[in-house]
Amino acid sequence: MEHHGDDIYCPANAALTLLGGRWTMHIVRSLLDGKKRFNEIANEHGINPGTCRDRLRELEEEGVVTRTVISAMPPHVEYMLTPKGEELNGIFEEVARWGRAWMKPPKHREPVSHG
Amino acid sequence: MEHHGDDIYCPANAALTLLGGRWTMHIVRSLLDGKKRFNEIANEHGINPGTCRDRLRELEEEGVVTRTVISAMPPHVEYMLTPKGEELNGIFEEVARWGRAWMKPPKHREPVSHG
Repeated sequence: MEHHGDDIYCPANAALTLLGGRWTMHIVRSLLDGKKRFNEIANEHGINPGTCRDRLRELEEEGVVTRTVISAMPPHVEYMLTPKGEELNGIFEEVARWGRAWMKPPKHREPVSHG
Repeated sequence: MEHHGDDIYCPANAALTLLGGRWTMHIVRSLLDGKKRFNEIANEHGINPGTCRDRLRELEEEGVVTRTVISAMPPHVEYMLTPKGEELNGIFEEVARWGRAWMKPPKHREPVSHG
């Protein structure tokens, strides 16, 4: 596990870096429900439009989403997952499973002591 | 899937928000190898120390890591995963599996056309 991401291309680490982008996992999660317009994706989680655009571009460059310009009036842009993107489903199932097992509403949290 | 994270507390979405923090998954991945000093974690991926500290604080508040001050000379701080943190292993296995199946070195990527 020494060289991950530095000298040698490590696909597991590349996946981690892609998915670790701010909002990337929320965006992919959102698209697992089906294709969405840019505004739907950004508004669903209150993502800054510039950030949302950057993350979608990264996902498009990695072949995780496709971007389609719909020439209606007004024109808009739709995003959907590719087969590569759909296959991320398993990760989200694991995240949900872990969350249900371990995440508790804030009121139940123990305060952290740095004594 | 309408209210996730907004009105109703959704543990799956809370997990996504926690793990979606910039560098959070890299930090957890790093600690799956065993306990580490603050500097080791930050240096491994070139994480800005302030950001690294913020992410570790979030993980500590969620009970994912423990923070121990070692009163040697010089004193330092060690982080390790809790049982809750160790259970994130399954997510990283899925990320690695997906990465090995789908991620290719940059030279093999097709350019994205926005024509």
